[in-house]
Amino acid sequence: MTRPKGSTVAFIGLGIMGSPMAAHLVAAGHDVTGFDLSSASLEKLVADGGKAATSAQEAVTGSEVVITMLPNHPQVEEVVNSVTFDDGTLLIDMSTIRPSTSIEIARKLSNVRVLDAPVSGGQTGAQQASLSIMVGGDEADFAAARPLLEIVGKTIVHVGPHGAGQVVKAANQLMVGGIYALVAESIVLLEASGVDPKAGLDVLAGGLAANRILDLKRETMIAREFQPGFRIDLHHKDMGIALDAARAADVALPVTNQIAALVAAARAQGYGSLDHSALLKVIENFAGRA
Amino acid sequence: MTRPKGSTVAFIGLGIMGSPMAAHLVAAGHDVTGFDLSSASLEKLVADGGKAATSAQEAVTGSEVVITMLPNHPQVEEVVNSVTFDDGTLLIDMSTIRPSTSIEIARKLSNVRVLDAPVSGGQTGAQQASLSIMVGGDEADFAAARPLLEIVGKTIVHVGPHGAGQVVKAANQLMVGGIYALVAESIVLLEASGVDPKAGLDVLAGGLAANRILDLKRETMIAREFQPGFRIDLHHKDMGIALDAARAADVALPVTNQIAALVAAARAQGYGSLDHSALLKVIENFAGRA
Amino acid sequence: MTRPKGSTVAFIGLGIMGSPMAAHLVAAGHDVTGFDLSSASLEKLVADGGKAATSAQEAVTGSEVVITMLPNHPQVEEVVNSVTFDDGTLLIDMSTIRPSTSIEIARKLSNVRVLDAPVSGGQTGAQQASLSIMVGGDEADFAAARPLLEIVGKTIVHVGPHGAGQVVKAANQLMVGGIYALVAESIVLLEASGVDPKAGLDVLAGGLAANRILDLKRETMIAREFQPGFRIDLHHKDMGIALDAARAADVALPVTNQIAALVAAARAQGYGSLDHSALLKVIENFAGRA
Amino acid sequence: MTRPKGSTVAFIGLGIMGSPMAAHLVAAGHDVTGFDLSSASLEKLVADGGKAATSAQEAVTGSEVVITMLPNHPQVEEVVNSVTFDDGTLLIDMSTIRPSTSIEIARKLSNVRVLDAPVSGGQTGAQQASLSIMVGGDEADFAAARPLLEIVGKTIVHVGPHGAGQVVKAANQLMVGGIYALVAESIVLLEASGVDPKAGLDVLAGGLAANRILDLKRETMIAREFQPGFRIDLHHKDMGIALDAARAADVALPVTNQIAALVAAARAQGYGSLDHSALLKVIENFAGRA
Repeated sequence: MTRPKGSTVAFIGLGIMGSPMAAHLVAAGHDVTGFDLSSASLEKLVADGGKAATSAQEAVTGSEVVITMLPNHPQVEEVVNSVTFDDGTLLIDMSTIRPSTSIEIARKLSNVRVLDAPVSGGQTGAQQASLSIMVGGDEADFAAARPLLEIVGKTIVHVGPHGAGQVVKAANQLMVGGIYALVAESIVLLEASGVDPKAGLDVLAGGLAANRILDLKRETMIAREFQPGFRIDLHHKDMGIALDAARAADVALPVTNQIAALVAAARAQGYGSLDHSALLKVIENFAGRA
Repeated sequence: MTRPKGSTVAFIGLGIMGSPMAAHLVAAGHDVTGFDLSSASLEKLVADGGKAATSAQEAVTGSEVVITMLPNHPQVEEVVNSVTFDDGTLLIDMSTIRPSTSIEIARKLSNVRVLDAPVSGGQTGAQQASLSIMVGGDEADFAAARPLLEIVGKTIVHVGPHGAGQVVKAANQLMVGGIYALVAESIVLLEASGVDPKAGLDVLAGGLAANRILDLKRETMIAREFQPGFRIDLHHKDMGIALDAARAADVALPVTNQIAALVAAARAQGYGSLDHSALLKVIENFAGRA
Repeated sequence: MTRPKGSTVAFIGLGIMGSPMAAHLVAAGHDVTGFDLSSASLEKLVADGGKAATSAQEAVTGSEVVITMLPNHPQVEEVVNSVTFDDGTLLIDMSTIRPSTSIEIARKLSNVRVLDAPVSGGQTGAQQASLSIMVGGDEADFAAARPLLEIVGKTIVHVGPHGAGQVVKAANQLMVGGIYALVAESIVLLEASGVDPKAGLDVLAGGLAANRILDLKRETMIAREFQPGFRIDLHHKDMGIALDAARAADVALPVTNQIAALVAAARAQGYGSLDHSALLKVIENFAGRA
Repeated sequence: MTRPKGSTVAFIGLGIMGSPMAAHLVAAGHDVTGFDLSSASLEKLVADGGKAATSAQEAVTGSEVVITMLPNHPQVEEVVNSVTFDDGTLLIDMSTIRPSTSIEIARKLSNVRVLDAPVSGGQTGAQQASLSIMVGGDEADFAAARPLLEIVGKTIVHVGPHGAGQVVKAANQLMVGGIYALVAESIVLLEASGVDPKAGLDVLAGGLAANRILDLKRETMIAREFQPGFRIDLHHKDMGIALDAARAADVALPVTNQIAALVAAARAQGYGSLDHSALLKVIENFAGRA
């Protein structure tokens, strides 16, 4: 089994998530060659001690491990379709994409050991190497990847076969979106009834309704402070993935569907670049409280 | 200001919640006279050291404090409309009813100091005197009631004017119902996608999606164990209150409405006497996974 | 069997619906005594050839038939609870109220022959005596009432026992509200996609999607002309009745629930006095197209 | 301008829709060469007087007009990507696919005159040449195609630029699905309330709620006869297109989203091969009336 410690790693996609993750791998002693369309991102990697490739192919050739951290499935598909991987490469796709694409890639790249390994925890998690990582794929490949993943994350869980990581990520995002909507409706109901929302939510946070979003976000939501954090536009993309996942699994999820509509409305109403807690704006517009 | 310690207390409604609460008040040294339509409940109170009245009026007359713990607004209205209260009585309605009725009662009983003080925490909370109590009404009356409430509850919060306690309770119930639905849809999506739901929910419980329901109930939900706990029938009643509260405040709450429909479906499908986590049954029936 | 032709009729509630209906009864040769809190309405009836009573009781006493046309169930209950009816009176409640109240009234007034007979067709239908009337109650009472109802309506159908008229009216209103929402979403989708909504809806009106609302209202909706017609506020009341009816029948209706939320949103957003086709405003606000 | 009368036509996709359409074109005097993966379909075309090609390319080469009638966008994309069209070919895609693909095809095939021309009216409409056809693309190309389209359809409307035909079809399908759901909820409410659904729907069909589905389908729905007609599986595909169209136009459509979830549930619950009126099954399962 490949020992990833000290391995040669190709890192494709050096954005706000990928850049600090690649830097952590360099710092941990790996030989990281990156590729990104932005030359600034490449220069950043070189400054962090990595190498810059002029193409995805150049980065991939000769690397034991390839990590992709890209915006969505078309970008991942483009890399996978345009690049030739060495036999036995460990390809860890850490992008958040629809499960069906992860499954398809694993099927297509029969000479490559593929894992889907989306993360949660956002930019802060990437910078602090405290990401949660949900991994789908073969057990042995997971074992091989684990030491590397532990460099960038804190909770690393093998949740099932190819695509399973993406499904868990989708479940995470539908639950987060849904809880935001519930907190938003609670705030609107309290305020419209003449009840101090802070006092009300304090009680809720102490009982069965307790949740992390209530803990972290109720004050900023009540104050209508919506600096991201995680942007509505990204959550909109993720709700699309959740709907795709449900469709692929042939299940109908009524609340998820509605949350997807609310997040889509947030974007359509012009809040795409605000934090996802701005779902409150949609709820209060709907409720006539804007 | 009346000092309720050692006060004479009428306790109307000695069901699974009221019975242990009244017993705690007796144990704390109060002079408690109870009334209930069930003679077994009255005998239980007498065994606990209280007195039994033969009518609500008999219990109320001469009591400094009257506590009502009744199923819903018609029962509370019936007591309020049929009984004559001594001037200056402190009436603490701990039933969960719609806010508009609480407001109306306070307006109508101009010679009585009225508080709405619904609780959360269920039968266990009543037995262990660990209820959360959300109180609406005047500050001075809340101060007067507080020592008594501290005997039966742990978190006691004054959240606003008359009806505010009920609004906060409504918000609590819509959030609890909504999170159950989200956990249910996550389980269905994971299972339908061939992912181990336990592994998946473990990851969710460690991130932004973390919530108490996930902590307490994910194992029993995955195992389809739905012994109450808090029955669907009661949650159905509470969602009706949440809708009434929204209607009274002239706000439209889309997710709350949908959760109300799901809880109503749970009851209509025959799960009324199961725990409210049985919302999972509705979701999996809908999703074709039953 | 009472022959209502030439009968003595008490007409309680002479608003925009009741006033022209009472006038039609007078014109058809009936002896109509009206009551309304508005003296202008009473004067109008006298001018139309009827008599004015100074109380509901005065109108009712000695009348073979009593017709009520009131805003909602509290007003109907108030009349029913405060008035003594002659034995054998035929009470036709043409108000739109929740079915459970209609059933309760029929049960309570054991010496009175009660029908629930809500109408559709609006002010124009009342003026032109072309209302649709859905009648619940006993067959014999329906037969007795029919000649009177034919004076004010065109389609008169006995749909079942007490309350059945109200249930059918509720079904009518949920379907009307729902179709408005569907037309609204179609317009928004077409416009947002750069397609001429008129051309698009013309095609829809020629196929399986054809419906009367599309026929009558698509042009005004596209032009955003929302003069009532039938006001959002009234439709909001009627959706509340539909939800009550579903709750009473212990069924959960997901789309009806959502339509109720949309109509509530229309009112909450300030469109209460516009035509119910103004549901389009809610949809386009939600969709970010306002 | 090409005069399509007597033109050479390639017809790709000879299924239950395409086969009778191609036969109508032959009967009208056109020189039709068909291609389909099923040899039985090809033999049928030959029996009808057309010619059979052994590949899409063979059918297309030398044809003035190419008509595609295929299941969904992947099949259309496959033809478009694998075939070389003669310059100036008129390509009429009559498949129901997402608008974005229609737009992309038109952009890509710069030497071809492309129209999107989905139909409604189903198998019966294809057999009786009475289809409704919604056409997107350039005015001149529409004028050129019109004589051909009039051979297979009755209502032929140019609704806007490339993709507009698909958007109108999507609007049609969301409205049809939505009205089915509303009829279903009405039936469930009436039955659960003890009201004869036939009597109730008869009244609705005479008022503002009137619609073609109520006219054509209420009896079979009440009788629970769900032979297709148009299958749930196909409507599920079409609701996916409606959601894609909304997403592409950056609008959020709450009712459409919910209808999509209900149709997905119908399929997930095993009713995929029943008529789309079987949405009633989902509603009655949800309502606990199954």
